[in-house]
Amino acid sequence: MKIRHPYLLFLGDAADQLAAKTANGVNVWRPDWCKGQFRLPGCKADLGIPDMNIKEAAKAGVKTVLVGVANRGGIIPPAWEKHLVKACDLGMDIASGLHNRLTDLPKLVAAAKANGRKLFDVRHPDRDFDVGTGIKRKGKRLLTVGTDCSVGKMFTSLALEKEMRRRKMKADFRATGQTGIFIAGSGVSIDAVISDFVSGAVEWLAPAASDADHWDLIEGQGSLFHASYAGVTLGLIHGSQPDALVVCHEHGRAHMRGLPHYKHPSLKDCIERNIEAAKLTNPKVKCVGVSINTQRVSEKEAIKLLKKTEDQLGLPAVDPMRTGVDAIVDTLR
Amino acid sequence: MKIRHPYLLFLGDAADQLAAKTANGVNVWRPDWCKGQFRLPGCKADLGIPDMNIKEAAKAGVKTVLVGVANRGGIIPPAWEKHLVKACDLGMDIASGLHNRLTDLPKLVAAAKANGRKLFDVRHPDRDFDVGTGIKRKGKRLLTVGTDCSVGKMFTSLALEKEMRRRKMKADFRATGQTGIFIAGSGVSIDAVISDFVSGAVEWLAPAASDADHWDLIEGQGSLFHASYAGVTLGLIHGSQPDALVVCHEHGRAHMRGLPHYKHPSLKDCIERNIEAAKLTNPKVKCVGVSINTQRVSEKEAIKLLKKTEDQLGLPAVDPMRTGVDAIVDTLR
Repeated sequence: MKIRHPYLLFLGDAADQLAAKTANGVNVWRPDWCKGQFRLPGCKADLGIPDMNIKEAAKAGVKTVLVGVANRGGIIPPAWEKHLVKACDLGMDIASGLHNRLTDLPKLVAAAKANGRKLFDVRHPDRDFDVGTGIKRKGKRLLTVGTDCSVGKMFTSLALEKEMRRRKMKADFRATGQTGIFIAGSGVSIDAVISDFVSGAVEWLAPAASDADHWDLIEGQGSLFHASYAGVTLGLIHGSQPDALVVCHEHGRAHMRGLPHYKHPSLKDCIERNIEAAKLTNPKVKCVGVSINTQRVSEKEAIKLLKKTEDQLGLPAVDPMRTGVDAIVDTLR
Repeated sequence: MKIRHPYLLFLGDAADQLAAKTANGVNVWRPDWCKGQFRLPGCKADLGIPDMNIKEAAKAGVKTVLVGVANRGGIIPPAWEKHLVKACDLGMDIASGLHNRLTDLPKLVAAAKANGRKLFDVRHPDRDFDVGTGIKRKGKRLLTVGTDCSVGKMFTSLALEKEMRRRKMKADFRATGQTGIFIAGSGVSIDAVISDFVSGAVEWLAPAASDADHWDLIEGQGSLFHASYAGVTLGLIHGSQPDALVVCHEHGRAHMRGLPHYKHPSLKDCIERNIEAAKLTNPKVKCVGVSINTQRVSEKEAIKLLKKTEDQLGLPAVDPMRTGVDAIVDTLR
């Protein structure tokens, strides 16, 4: 799975701005790759980039049309399909983050085949993996973990990549979810891997590096404290063999995502449990910082919270949106 | 997936006795369900039950032919297929524990369809599952966990079921692996479930009981200490919401199965880590005993080892083969 850019961001008839969250993430982190957005009548989302139809996109040099929009039931309606067929006819690949597969649409499959184009269903791994070996690999690895799902693990990983590259450090973001895969151009939707092969898939995703000082920044998923997904997280931890963990958290959430009967762990417990788990495949693992999404409180309160967290834990505490991640990158040198 | 018995155990041309391990397990635990074995020329395994061809099996009232044999690459050779086709023609279902699927053999699929028969690929779940909810369910659950893979978790669970039923306790073995599924007649090959749905699959497998004093005895898989499979184990723990854990171990192994560079945890660490993990979905979980496979040492040494383990841990320590599991069942009353 290697998705070619530049992209046209296909928003379809997105019901609201939130439905275009994936496309928005791609545009935020890879603005140079996003030539335009394609919106159908009734679309309520706007990424503030040029509107472009399929023909214009082909002319502008777009290589892949990204279906980066959430849709009821994860399906691709017939009204979208003709545009995607046209994109194939004009030489573009299609990549979709929806649950239902592009490869289940016969007309689209035919068009892709006829034109030698590729269809990427990024939620579904396109290859088999071996079981994990637990054998140490060359290079350094940082994994983002969290108190819960959707607390900023991808955002933190990407912010680290950006800052490390700015400092000329060797660093590559490794994507484990659909938005991350669009942003990286490749990756594995780890929660869609057969459970036996999760750690093996991560060993494949973050393989031995050529340089001992190269960092893979692996996008975390779920949480060891999430009753639905903790197994995914543990396989991801073991396959990553992280040298460094960054614990992510969103301040002010009432309960675990989707589980009103489950409370969040404390940051201290979360750090301890993740370190304990990670030690199995890398006994030298360290927690190098905490990343807190403080969007629910004022700037002043946020700074106070981060300072208090640093004092309590003896670790850098950042909000990538507000403070950047410099303090964490400093610890990696 | 509900496999009808009695069974004919299809051994094919098994290379040795070990290749028929699955069939042997079924015969040991469900002798009344096993009418006979079917061996092809060159078969080196013998379960000591009547030899029977397909026609004789049909006459004897067999409902399902079990392909309970390990084969190179997990495939079904053409020489086997004609016998399985014949079984369908004579009104029997087929259930296979091989990796490759019965449902990928066109002639067999046609024969099953023509005769209204079922093909069970027990290594592959035949339905989708929801994500786990973590919501407490009625009834009691015991899960076997272990220091490693293949240390006797299935055997221990089945020994507990047998002893509990002997005492007229309400108890059902819940199978999570291929041999267990043949023995239970149903179940889920948990390591073949998409990682996101592992805990949900276990919630489905061991649902709310009608009686508060009913015990589900859930077959464990892998180990929290196994670098390849710990994620599967954690999802299984969370979905099981166990009230009771039994920790299984094989005495005298040199290293973790398949991972020569990984050592086993101590029983104490293993108990602590499993309890800690299980507390997320059942804060009242307790370890109720240790089950040690002592086959590598003499009876005398085994008894000494079990006594020493009991004294060290303050828990019943049994070898189901040598001592039975009474001491553990006593703690459940």
